[in-house]
Amino acid sequence: MESIPSVIPGWFSEMSPMWPGEAHSLKIEKVLYQEKSEYQSVLVFQSSTYGKVLVLDGVIQLTERDECAYQEMISHLPLCSIQNPRKVLVIGGGDGGVLREVSRYPSMEQIDICEIDKMVVDVSKQFFPALAIGFEDPRVNLHIGDGTAFLKSVTEGTYDAIIVDSSDPIGPAQELFKKPFFESVGRALRPGGVVCTQAESIWLHMHIIEDIVNVCRQIFKGSINYAWTTVPTYPSGVMGFMLCSTEGPFVDFQRPVYNIEENTENFGNSKGPPRFYNSEIHSAAFCLPSFAKRVLQPEIN
Amino acid sequence: MESIPSVIPGWFSEMSPMWPGEAHSLKIEKVLYQEKSEYQSVLVFQSSTYGKVLVLDGVIQLTERDECAYQEMISHLPLCSIQNPRKVLVIGGGDGGVLREVSRYPSMEQIDICEIDKMVVDVSKQFFPALAIGFEDPRVNLHIGDGTAFLKSVTEGTYDAIIVDSSDPIGPAQELFKKPFFESVGRALRPGGVVCTQAESIWLHMHIIEDIVNVCRQIFKGSINYAWTTVPTYPSGVMGFMLCSTEGPFVDFQRPVYNIEENTENFGNSKGPPRFYNSEIHSAAFCLPSFAKRVLQPEIN
Repeated sequence: MESIPSVIPGWFSEMSPMWPGEAHSLKIEKVLYQEKSEYQSVLVFQSSTYGKVLVLDGVIQLTERDECAYQEMISHLPLCSIQNPRKVLVIGGGDGGVLREVSRYPSMEQIDICEIDKMVVDVSKQFFPALAIGFEDPRVNLHIGDGTAFLKSVTEGTYDAIIVDSSDPIGPAQELFKKPFFESVGRALRPGGVVCTQAESIWLHMHIIEDIVNVCRQIFKGSINYAWTTVPTYPSGVMGFMLCSTEGPFVDFQRPVYNIEENTENFGNSKGPPRFYNSEIHSAAFCLPSFAKRVLQPEIN
Repeated sequence: MESIPSVIPGWFSEMSPMWPGEAHSLKIEKVLYQEKSEYQSVLVFQSSTYGKVLVLDGVIQLTERDECAYQEMISHLPLCSIQNPRKVLVIGGGDGGVLREVSRYPSMEQIDICEIDKMVVDVSKQFFPALAIGFEDPRVNLHIGDGTAFLKSVTEGTYDAIIVDSSDPIGPAQELFKKPFFESVGRALRPGGVVCTQAESIWLHMHIIEDIVNVCRQIFKGSINYAWTTVPTYPSGVMGFMLCSTEGPFVDFQRPVYNIEENTENFGNSKGPPRFYNSEIHSAAFCLPSFAKRVLQPEIN
C-alpha cells in the first residue's frame, strides 16, 4: 500500500494542476482501501465529518455527506426535462449513484451503464451500499469497458437520455470531453433526446466550459444549456452540467415536465425522496452569475 | 509578528471548530500584513491564485477573486427588493465592499456604516482599493463602534434597509446573531423596511440557521426568506442570507423590483456592471435544496 497523498499528517489533501494554489483537506479517521487499478489509483477512507470518501487519482469523487447534490442533479436535470424516459445510458458512474437516481422513473425500461474501471464498481459495492444499491435494479445492464467504444457499437437513435458521469478531463476521462465523443453521443440519442455531462466549475474552468459549449453547439441542433449546483467537496464548491438535446421535439431544460417528488413510487431503491433535487432548484440551476453569463450566453446579454 | 496558522508549509489553512474535520488552504505568495487589533487577529496575504486575501481570527473574509459573489448578493438581494432605497445602514462590512455595492443606487441619500474594528477599515484602504473605494462615496458616514450600541441610538424607523455583514457567531460578531440585536434592527427599520444578514451555510450550520429563522419569525412580521449563493473560499463553498421585512408594505424578496444592470449610472464607484449579481440569480438564490427546504420551509412541504 502506497502512502496517502497528504501534506497534513492524518489528513487527505486534494491538490491538482487543475486548481493550482488551493487545496481542500478532510481529516482521515481510517483508510479503508487503497489500490492501483488498471486505470487509476483508488482510495476509500472514513473521514471524521463527511462519512466515507471515494478518491480517484487523488481527486475526491464523492463523500457520503454531499453526494446527493451531484448524483441527483446530473440525473434529474436531464430526465425531468423529457416525458417518460424509457432507455438511458450512463457513461462512467461506476459508483452506482446515478443508477440509483435513474431507477426512480416508473417509465424506465432499460438502464445501460458503461464504466471503464471495474475496481470502482467493486469498491462501491463493498464500501458505499447507499450508492451501489443502484446496481440492484433489474433494468440495469452493466458493461465494463471504454465509453467511446461502447457508444460506437450502439444502434443509432437508441437512447432517450445519456448521462456522462465522468471524472476530470485529466486521466481516463479525457476522451469524454472531445468532439468525436459528443458526435457518438448525438448519434446514439433519439431525435429530441438529451445528454447531461459533468462540466466543471464556472469559478475555475471557464475556458474548458467554453470549449465544451462550442463543441456542443456544432453537434447538437436542439437546446444547449449550462447548469450548476453546490457540491462542497468539489473544487470551488460547485459543479456544472452541460445539457443538450438533439434535433427533434423541443426540450426546454429550464422548465421540468416531470415532478419526481410527486408520488412515493418514485422513491425507488433509494428508499426515500430526493435529498437535494426539487423542481425549483432544477430551474434555478440554469441561472448563471453575470461573469459566466457574459461568456456562455452572449446572445442574451 | 506571530506565525501564520498553517498546516501546509507556505500555505494558509482555514480550520475552525465551526467546520471540524475539513480545511481549505490557499498558497501564500507573500504575507502583506499581520497584526492583532483590539478585537481580533488581522492577516492579509497575497495568494498565488486568489489575489489578495483578508483573514480575521484565522477565517477567510474575502479574496479578490471571489468577493464579488458575497458583496453583491448581500447588498442587492435586499436593495433590489424595495423601491428607491434612500437610507441604508451597514453593520460590519469594514472592508468597504458592501458600501461599493450600496452606492450603485441613484436613489440613495444616506449610507451609514458601523464597524467595530478600525484596523479592518485601515487595512482595506491599504491593501484592497477595489473594495475600500466604497468609502469614497460622499453619502457614506463611517462610525467606528459596536453595532448593537449604535442601533440603540438610532431613531425608530430610520432606515429602508439594514445589511449585517458580520463574521461568524464566534468572536466579536456573536451578539449579531441574538434576539436583542434583531429587535434593535426591527426598531431601526421603517415599516416595510428590509434586513439582510449573513446566515452561514446550509451544508454546515443548519442548526444555527434554524435558530436565526426562529428568532426572526418572532420579530419580523413581514416576509421571512432564506437565500444562498456560491462563494468558493467560504467553508462548504456557499454562504446564506437571512432576509426579513418589518410589518408594512409587502416585500416579495423573490421577485426583485429593481434591475441594477439596466443603466450604466448604476455602475457607480465600482466602474463596471456587477460581476456576479443579476435579476435571475436573485430569484434563483431563494430556491433551496430539499434537505434545507424541509427544515426551513416546513409549511410549504
